[in-house]
Amino acid sequence: MKVCKFGGTSVASATQIKKVVDIVLSDKERKIVVVSAPGKRSSDDTKVTDLLIELANRALNNEDTTEACANVIARYEEIAQELNIDPKIIETIRQDIEQRVQSSKEDEVLFMDSMKAAGEDNNAKLIAAYFQSLGVEARYVSPKEGGLLVNERPARVQALPEGDEQLAKLKDEKGIIVFPGFFGFTKNGTLRTFNRGGSDITGSLLAAATDATLYENFTDVDSVFAANPMVVDEPEAIKEMTYREMRELAYAGFSVFHDEALMPAFRKSVPVCIKNTNNPEAPGTMIVSERKKPSNRPVVGIAADDGFATLYVDKYLMNQELGFGRKLLEILEDEGISFEHTPSGIDNMSVILRTEYLTPENEKRVIERVQEELQPDHVHLEKDLSMVVLVGEGMRHTLGLASRAAGAISRSGASIQMINQGSSEVSLVFGILTADETRVLKSLYDEFFK
Amino acid sequence: MKVCKFGGTSVASATQIKKVVDIVLSDKERKIVVVSAPGKRSSDDTKVTDLLIELANRALNNEDTTEACANVIARYEEIAQELNIDPKIIETIRQDIEQRVQSSKEDEVLFMDSMKAAGEDNNAKLIAAYFQSLGVEARYVSPKEGGLLVNERPARVQALPEGDEQLAKLKDEKGIIVFPGFFGFTKNGTLRTFNRGGSDITGSLLAAATDATLYENFTDVDSVFAANPMVVDEPEAIKEMTYREMRELAYAGFSVFHDEALMPAFRKSVPVCIKNTNNPEAPGTMIVSERKKPSNRPVVGIAADDGFATLYVDKYLMNQELGFGRKLLEILEDEGISFEHTPSGIDNMSVILRTEYLTPENEKRVIERVQEELQPDHVHLEKDLSMVVLVGEGMRHTLGLASRAAGAISRSGASIQMINQGSSEVSLVFGILTADETRVLKSLYDEFFK
Repeated sequence: MKVCKFGGTSVASATQIKKVVDIVLSDKERKIVVVSAPGKRSSDDTKVTDLLIELANRALNNEDTTEACANVIARYEEIAQELNIDPKIIETIRQDIEQRVQSSKEDEVLFMDSMKAAGEDNNAKLIAAYFQSLGVEARYVSPKEGGLLVNERPARVQALPEGDEQLAKLKDEKGIIVFPGFFGFTKNGTLRTFNRGGSDITGSLLAAATDATLYENFTDVDSVFAANPMVVDEPEAIKEMTYREMRELAYAGFSVFHDEALMPAFRKSVPVCIKNTNNPEAPGTMIVSERKKPSNRPVVGIAADDGFATLYVDKYLMNQELGFGRKLLEILEDEGISFEHTPSGIDNMSVILRTEYLTPENEKRVIERVQEELQPDHVHLEKDLSMVVLVGEGMRHTLGLASRAAGAISRSGASIQMINQGSSEVSLVFGILTADETRVLKSLYDEFFK
Repeated sequence: MKVCKFGGTSVASATQIKKVVDIVLSDKERKIVVVSAPGKRSSDDTKVTDLLIELANRALNNEDTTEACANVIARYEEIAQELNIDPKIIETIRQDIEQRVQSSKEDEVLFMDSMKAAGEDNNAKLIAAYFQSLGVEARYVSPKEGGLLVNERPARVQALPEGDEQLAKLKDEKGIIVFPGFFGFTKNGTLRTFNRGGSDITGSLLAAATDATLYENFTDVDSVFAANPMVVDEPEAIKEMTYREMRELAYAGFSVFHDEALMPAFRKSVPVCIKNTNNPEAPGTMIVSERKKPSNRPVVGIAADDGFATLYVDKYLMNQELGFGRKLLEILEDEGISFEHTPSGIDNMSVILRTEYLTPENEKRVIERVQEELQPDHVHLEKDLSMVVLVGEGMRHTLGLASRAAGAISRSGASIQMINQGSSEVSLVFGILTADETRVLKSLYDEFFK
């Protein structure tokens, strides 16, 4: 039994939804179908989720919502008409959306969650109705009925394992289950959306809970590429990679999956396949626990991401001060700042972090506290760093790889600000100036893939 | 005004002490002379300090001390006779040592400190007497009179800055000051020895307190070499290096100076010169705050040291757990284990530490606590690691250096276990298997010096 998830562009229009239905019906194993809200039909289109946010904001500001509401419903109506579905479904959707708009706005976060979730929820109802209109045994299952339980506010939303038992029952149902992505319910029935990973998480959770043989994630690309196609010309497709490789690539700019989305599938070792709704015959990219036969390339992918900074601290005889590193990390932790790497010399330590965590205020406080509490000789913060990550399970056993990589970076004319190798067996991280990112990525790609 | 310190082999015999006196008298700036205890005269000889430890142990065990005591005094007597010094000095030394042997053994650590310090203390008295016998204005100054104040037990012995004012007065004395290295006195007059860095610290403290123009450290080599002469054939001499370079090299096996020994001179920017008592004409190695003209080599030295281990911890989504790294370091800190480097991947973190800090007990506790408190997917400890450090102020600005280094390591057939670059501007650290250390060092030396 397979769980298939279809992203926003895969369910953006009647044409796309027909492809989805064809894909699902072409393989009897495809039983649970997780759907996103209708996405963009062209690059200048607006996603339904964004229409819903606009509608929610008008409602919160006590502005007239008639037109904004109509804009949302029009998207579903157009799809339903083109698919020849009984117009009753539009009445259902209209009532649902109007009910949400009228609901309590006391807690603005929960109101917004409920409004945004309407995109996926109603698309699942509509797609289930389309299956039925074709005479296929299929039904919409809401996350409340299905048992997708999430934790209470204000903690960041995460699925609760207590829901798994009920979710597992979905595999024993007859016919196809159409399940909306992106949200779940707390034990007392409050709707909360996943703020990271969206519908991908829903699919991954269902695949794990039902012990699916495969989690198929349909999107609009044939596969994951070995490097960013916006930077490198026609990069190679990755046919197969491990979870670990995917994780390391996702960290530095490979946006196919959010970190957390893969977690449930990973924990149960359910293989994942990334496929293209518009070209379902293409093999796609398989993500597995372990490769059946080793790859002939030591590096499977190269990712780069900007937005990093270095906090540099220097103190004579630092390495004799037990607890120095711990205290430094504690100051960052007190400010809620995660760190990525901590390269260290004898008398100095750098903490590489993402600039998104920095504000002028917490930056100032961190520097001041380091000065006061650690009494360093120097402390300063440098920004405009990018991280380039080479990923591959075979790297550890390949002699000379670091040398080839460092050589390729040097040839591009960039200077290496940081090298981090030694913990992960599957990645090698270089810190470079953001200004050098593009040429470094090209040079590394040429070295390892050409 | 210069402070000169002479190491054990430089003051091991009458012949050597004559060289010391010649050196001191050949430059009027050489005013404060710090001396060690008589060291080995040949490779199978016993240092006076070791004779004193033997004597102290016999005294602590209530064994007969007559012969052990005579062995110590015989060394001084032989020197005094050969130097034709008034035999009264031997009486002074005999009384001093007998007094120490008779002193309270209630606190064994303090008794041992006092016994060991007799080596330097009496050698200073003897050398001062020799200067006087030559008609030179010179006198022995005890650390108590001079003002070399140290902290109280049980904290690790360190000099107190309160002593500096009195020490500074030494520069205004007439004639030559002969000062014993290796120990100081607490405010209430208890003798304590420096357990790390020995007499080098005394010289460095005096040079700093007296604002010396130079701290000359006389030993038995012409200079510091760019690599270990036991491994690399005839390595290049280093003419000049910075404090930072010295620190980084000292960290990984360059045993010319202990870390802490340079600290006082460093804080006051007193330049240090390492010279050879047996070849005082050789220019030696200068250690300075900043080079006057940049070196034409990016790397000034390559050091290697074994005895490292890696604690590896792996947990899916680790980098989203704020405080994970801090907690890991805290567990080590609770066990009193310092760490050297912490390379990290996306979902993993390694802590490189010195195996000398590990015991079967604390190793077991660390692993258990990591498992319980951090709930990792995996944790394990790997030993038999060596660190190889390339050091040079010019490294940061040299493109392709990491690539050349990694290439040289690969060519030696070794695999790189860890690379740490990015915090220190003057060093690049590679982790390798200890079994590969010799060939890696040779290969790196050939790459950067041949």
